[in-house]
Amino acid sequence: MQGELERALSVIFKRQVDTVCAGRTDAGVHALGQVVSFEVAESEIEGRSFERLRASLNALVEDGIAITAVEERKCGFSARFDAKSRTYRYFICNQPTRPVFCKMFSWHVPKSLDVDSMLKASRYLLGEHDFKSFCAACSSKDRTTSRYIESIDIDRAQIMGESIIVVEVRGNAFLHNMIRIIVGTLVKVGLGKCEPEWVLDVLRGADRRLAGETAPANGLIFWHVRY
Amino acid sequence: MQGELERALSVIFKRQVDTVCAGRTDAGVHALGQVVSFEVAESEIEGRSFERLRASLNALVEDGIAITAVEERKCGFSARFDAKSRTYRYFICNQPTRPVFCKMFSWHVPKSLDVDSMLKASRYLLGEHDFKSFCAACSSKDRTTSRYIESIDIDRAQIMGESIIVVEVRGNAFLHNMIRIIVGTLVKVGLGKCEPEWVLDVLRGADRRLAGETAPANGLIFWHVRY
Repeated sequence: MQGELERALSVIFKRQVDTVCAGRTDAGVHALGQVVSFEVAESEIEGRSFERLRASLNALVEDGIAITAVEERKCGFSARFDAKSRTYRYFICNQPTRPVFCKMFSWHVPKSLDVDSMLKASRYLLGEHDFKSFCAACSSKDRTTSRYIESIDIDRAQIMGESIIVVEVRGNAFLHNMIRIIVGTLVKVGLGKCEPEWVLDVLRGADRRLAGETAPANGLIFWHVRY
Repeated sequence: MQGELERALSVIFKRQVDTVCAGRTDAGVHALGQVVSFEVAESEIEGRSFERLRASLNALVEDGIAITAVEERKCGFSARFDAKSRTYRYFICNQPTRPVFCKMFSWHVPKSLDVDSMLKASRYLLGEHDFKSFCAACSSKDRTTSRYIESIDIDRAQIMGESIIVVEVRGNAFLHNMIRIIVGTLVKVGLGKCEPEWVLDVLRGADRRLAGETAPANGLIFWHVRY
């Protein structure tokens, strides 16, 4: 996505334009409320309205990307570093039959999940913790694996007639694959393979091998960022 | 879809198996609650549970098709002729920005639609009428172009963060492209190009050229059939 956007910006501004994204989206992860910042001189904008810029960008990027707005921010604004909190949603299609409409953005878990025990398990993850167990390939280069989770909501929904469980996670920042590992861990509880309290052991162990599997990328959507 | 299913059935029963669909879905039209009937001898079923048959069919058909259940009906049952009413839903993505998630199953109308006047217009279509104006390529071979519409509901919804208008049409049976032409006509009213009362003239004129455009196929979903 970022590459595609930078390509479009370079066509418009006739030079390389670097961008900064609010939330990381690994390959296969979707973004709905992504915010991207870039810097151009006032002289480069001259004569172009932001609405016009939006239309040009939409015409230049591929179909899977939609630019909803172009706005001005104070000089030095960074979509990444000025973010106060980030919200991700993970979509689990929880029905015996494989999803057709939600296939593009959900993980199919055919066996029925116990949402109550998933919710109970998620309570242990709220607040500030060392999330080393929930980090893929954390290296010693990472200054800290401590992160703050503001909220986790888990709800059932029907989307296009398909049974979906939406896991919404809000926090300041996330480690590599952190939300996908959280979801994989909660699903293990939801399937009854582990008790909700097991999550506390996973957290305390500070070892990636203790947590559940990494949920597939395509169920994850970067939903919203607050500044 | 039907061809794909018949191919899978022929693999399982080792002979050509003809099927009958509850609702017609032209190229590009989706089906969620489709019902398909076919006849096999009791001896051919022998030893196979319906659940097993369902699993085999799902394994044999392509990813875009999901068989939710296989059930037995009395001899002579026809998914098409025994249907009491059919429900279709048409999804309009009504927002300036093009849809990303709902792209697969919606018609993008960027200008804001007036749902109230669309609803008002739809009232004229309820009940039994000659829907000749709402029929693509109606030939003299069609015994009658009279159809009965039980209900039309129009609601706004958010699906995956995108602004959708859902038009739900229920009736006994529909002419070729009838729902897509109804939606195209209602959208013309919703855009303010025609008054709701204009629909009455379209109906009375019994001429396809009077109605609105045929809405794109991929916004239409065969939703439900009642027996």
